[in-house]
Amino acid sequence: MNYKYPNLIAHIRRYVHLTESEISVIEFYFKPLDLKRKEILLSEGKICTSNFFVEKGCIRMYYINEKLVEQTTQFALDCWWLSDYFSFAKQSPTQYFIQAVEKSTVLAIEYQLQDKLFEEIPQLERYFRIMMQRALAASQLRIKLIYELSKEEMYRHFNTSFPQFFQRVPQYMIASYLGLTPEYLSELRKKG
Amino acid sequence: MNYKYPNLIAHIRRYVHLTESEISVIEFYFKPLDLKRKEILLSEGKICTSNFFVEKGCIRMYYINEKLVEQTTQFALDCWWLSDYFSFAKQSPTQYFIQAVEKSTVLAIEYQLQDKLFEEIPQLERYFRIMMQRALAASQLRIKLIYELSKEEMYRHFNTSFPQFFQRVPQYMIASYLGLTPEYLSELRKKG
Repeated sequence: MNYKYPNLIAHIRRYVHLTESEISVIEFYFKPLDLKRKEILLSEGKICTSNFFVEKGCIRMYYINEKLVEQTTQFALDCWWLSDYFSFAKQSPTQYFIQAVEKSTVLAIEYQLQDKLFEEIPQLERYFRIMMQRALAASQLRIKLIYELSKEEMYRHFNTSFPQFFQRVPQYMIASYLGLTPEYLSELRKKG
Repeated sequence: MNYKYPNLIAHIRRYVHLTESEISVIEFYFKPLDLKRKEILLSEGKICTSNFFVEKGCIRMYYINEKLVEQTTQFALDCWWLSDYFSFAKQSPTQYFIQAVEKSTVLAIEYQLQDKLFEEIPQLERYFRIMMQRALAASQLRIKLIYELSKEEMYRHFNTSFPQFFQRVPQYMIASYLGLTPEYLSELRKKG
């Protein structure tokens, strides 16, 4: 079968069983967003109405700090989910921006539609339970790394764990994620 | 009805419907742990075999940093879930300790039994999906606060958001969670 969103469908099928008719229902509820590099998906002050799946590409979440500098808090590459889950769950205004890092296809599922989807295909609760648990595990690890590692160690950890980032993501975004100045990141990269 | 674990059952029922016989199944699968103050639930190097629900009391997660000092990363009060979700999902050794902060009753569900429970009562996938999403939202917020707030602001935010902590949790644990020395925390508390 040719699916509209092959990566999403394959990803869900790694965790739960789906019939062909359930796949049609899923594809009906998701809205595809073809984003140009740097296109904004969500802006501070708006309600984060959707949960986003990266079908292809890379997006990031950031906020503007008090020095008016972008502080990146998360990246999501192919087949990761990203949302401001506080704003999403409460349907309250977000403090974040979500932006395409490169040309990307993102699939958005709105809050109310996600609940309807759970009614129609209850095994998706399992899929999302596993996705949320996985993201929570990553977030617990990130907090530990922030406490534990020096900035240089954080760079080395990130470089070893996710080498593809350095090819795909602009240096200033990585620097912001790691809490480094772009100049210091550039020095570290030269040191290798 | 008198339930063995009234807080757990009431908490699940806020999110999903349960019959009396389903409640018996749930109560069968959970193992109650009556913990003394400072009793250890999980130690570094062991596999985190269980997901923990605080029926009553307070527990915390910490690791020993390279200066051999306890670094607290999370607290869980009544009706919160806590686990090292990386170790739990992979059944791999943890880098953390989980410890009772005060006399507590904690309900533990083992990894394999949680999966059996999902088979028997599929609507629990929804309950845990919501719990994981809620914990993820809290973790996203915590990362933002770590980036954004000075240590003094972190203290004020925490004091305003969770005043009950300061009555229940020893000062040195709060200091460690906030990244302060106990002396500096004591100064801030005097300033009010």
